[in-house]
Amino acid sequence: MRNFNYDIPTKILFGKNKVEEMMPEIKTFGSRLLLAYGGGSIKKNGLYDTLVTLFKKNDIFVVELSGIQPNPRISSVREGVRLCRAHKIDLILAVGGGSVIDACKAIAAGVNYKGDAWDFMIGKAQVENPLPIGTILTLAATGSEMNGGAVISNDETLDKRPMGHPSLRPKFSVLDPTYTFSVNKWQTGAGVTDIMSHIFELYYTTDKGVFVPDAMAEALMKTCLQYGLVAIDEPENYEARANLMWAGTLALNGMLSFGKLPGDWATHMIEHEISAIYDVTHGAGLAIIFPVWMEYVLDADNAWRFAQMARNVWGVSEKDDLTAARQGIEAVRDFFSRLGMPSRLSDLNIDGTHIAVMAKKACVYGDLGNIKKLKIDDVRSILEGAL
Amino acid sequence: MRNFNYDIPTKILFGKNKVEEMMPEIKTFGSRLLLAYGGGSIKKNGLYDTLVTLFKKNDIFVVELSGIQPNPRISSVREGVRLCRAHKIDLILAVGGGSVIDACKAIAAGVNYKGDAWDFMIGKAQVENPLPIGTILTLAATGSEMNGGAVISNDETLDKRPMGHPSLRPKFSVLDPTYTFSVNKWQTGAGVTDIMSHIFELYYTTDKGVFVPDAMAEALMKTCLQYGLVAIDEPENYEARANLMWAGTLALNGMLSFGKLPGDWATHMIEHEISAIYDVTHGAGLAIIFPVWMEYVLDADNAWRFAQMARNVWGVSEKDDLTAARQGIEAVRDFFSRLGMPSRLSDLNIDGTHIAVMAKKACVYGDLGNIKKLKIDDVRSILEGAL
Repeated sequence: MRNFNYDIPTKILFGKNKVEEMMPEIKTFGSRLLLAYGGGSIKKNGLYDTLVTLFKKNDIFVVELSGIQPNPRISSVREGVRLCRAHKIDLILAVGGGSVIDACKAIAAGVNYKGDAWDFMIGKAQVENPLPIGTILTLAATGSEMNGGAVISNDETLDKRPMGHPSLRPKFSVLDPTYTFSVNKWQTGAGVTDIMSHIFELYYTTDKGVFVPDAMAEALMKTCLQYGLVAIDEPENYEARANLMWAGTLALNGMLSFGKLPGDWATHMIEHEISAIYDVTHGAGLAIIFPVWMEYVLDADNAWRFAQMARNVWGVSEKDDLTAARQGIEAVRDFFSRLGMPSRLSDLNIDGTHIAVMAKKACVYGDLGNIKKLKIDDVRSILEGAL
Repeated sequence: MRNFNYDIPTKILFGKNKVEEMMPEIKTFGSRLLLAYGGGSIKKNGLYDTLVTLFKKNDIFVVELSGIQPNPRISSVREGVRLCRAHKIDLILAVGGGSVIDACKAIAAGVNYKGDAWDFMIGKAQVENPLPIGTILTLAATGSEMNGGAVISNDETLDKRPMGHPSLRPKFSVLDPTYTFSVNKWQTGAGVTDIMSHIFELYYTTDKGVFVPDAMAEALMKTCLQYGLVAIDEPENYEARANLMWAGTLALNGMLSFGKLPGDWATHMIEHEISAIYDVTHGAGLAIIFPVWMEYVLDADNAWRFAQMARNVWGVSEKDDLTAARQGIEAVRDFFSRLGMPSRLSDLNIDGTHIAVMAKKACVYGDLGNIKKLKIDDVRSILEGAL
């Protein structure tokens, strides 16, 4: 195991009606709030009304930023920064899935920074003294509710880039599984794929002898396998929604990489290039790329790790590592398919037109990945293999 | 899954030489330190000298409290409280295993409390405004390094009682697996048994559908199984020591009970009565009682949970739950035995003399356990079954 520091100060309020315990957390930071959300589903399910009543009762001044889109745009971030400055906001409350939370992290970072918020995405600025943020999660997927990372898209340049800093970890997150009851089949499947993909990214490193994080990762993969289809078939199954929600949070709060390298992440970087141009659902893009990536990087040296997953998660009993590994990859592909996810880029009407550009942009900051270093040509091969 | 709050602010500095990164954490709280340790093994392995040098270099005023014993005594706690008050201590640094850390928690609670520190153990006082503590762990076992609990023995009344409060969580803990290289075979085996017992206590509740905490618990049980004997056979095997150390910490930091009832704990309460009178090694007492307790409480209603452990951890393939459960219990007994632990009270020269007293004292605050409620007669039967 490698050396690491564990420091996860985000408080989680997990369970039914936990939003009612949120006000003391908010008041720790002040009384002027930016309430950020997406397309308005929180107005349909009653959460918005609950919040407005809570804020009134507690004399909280609220400014709203709505309409934050999936693959959140830098334009929303800029608008949020403007609102926070104009209204002297104390705390940002992100209500939604990863897109809303990610946008709020970029806003939080931008408020006390003099330049443009896109600077964080291109390495031109470091996060300093961000506004505090809290979240109310309405989609089990990105894990953004308990970490300091964000991914923002630039609608002008068609770039999609990550940023992050420990100080951007939410101060608190409300995880009420009932808020995910209304998530449709497609988004539920994409969310489970996203959770599983995060676990894969952290699992697939060259580290050996990292039993605890590996076994934890396998535990969370099995959770996805246990409940993914249940949540699609029975959207109001609390047990399924709760276990998936908690798995999604734990998958990316740091736990799975303590003692290891920080993950592979090649697949995410490749998918970002796809969704930057085509604006596809992140989970759907991952469902296509991950099995192709797995087949591409699998070799005799790393087969033990693929085989370990195959045996411990997918019940593969094959003794030969390479064969077991391939069976495990097939099981992953099959599972994503049963989640209703596409398996080829052509399923999303994406052809080879932009592959050369995507491959080049994916590697703009250097080779990708950990378990195998990928160059532009490798990325192109993976994208072509996914057509 | 049940509602829960996650709030684990303890920082962990994990790995080789991590003690060198500790000073900024200490300085957050002040410059006057109580250095608490046990029998002096830290003087043999060089850690004491490292610390003295660090403290000198950083102008830290240090008072020492040494000689804290296994099953730590209230007399040590009282002495610590006296020292902290006399020297206006800012922070307590516990260097050792769970006994030293537990004693320091009771000291931390006692300093700003006007009555006697034993009051916390008998429910006469609540913890308020404790001194901050930090720890350097030298034994993988109790998990005390990342939680707010402590168990203290009263050498006058032969009582051994738990206390706890979230504010007693260490502010930071240094986990350097190399400090456990010198732990002997007996203490290593007892430590692994203690870790596994904590996982059992949290695993065995009546909750159903708690897949995430269950799978995490199974992951940590498998870690004990993977590395327990390795650490005994190869005391300087870093991989084994590191995985066990991290498993021991995660086993009792709260993770395994989020979403569940807070555990069974009958076995621990019973074992406390044994070690209060006979001063046996905690892990050795647990190794004897746990399999007997498992056999005693197993029934048709809870067999599914025992069978789940048997299949997921011990590789039992038997289809019938009750039969699988019994095979799992045998596997646990066998594993503790291979760790060098005793299997009967008579192995520790304990006879039936005090069984009636122990059973009565174990239930002094009410029935024990969650998966099955135990009364005095049940506890007596378990103790008699362990003779």
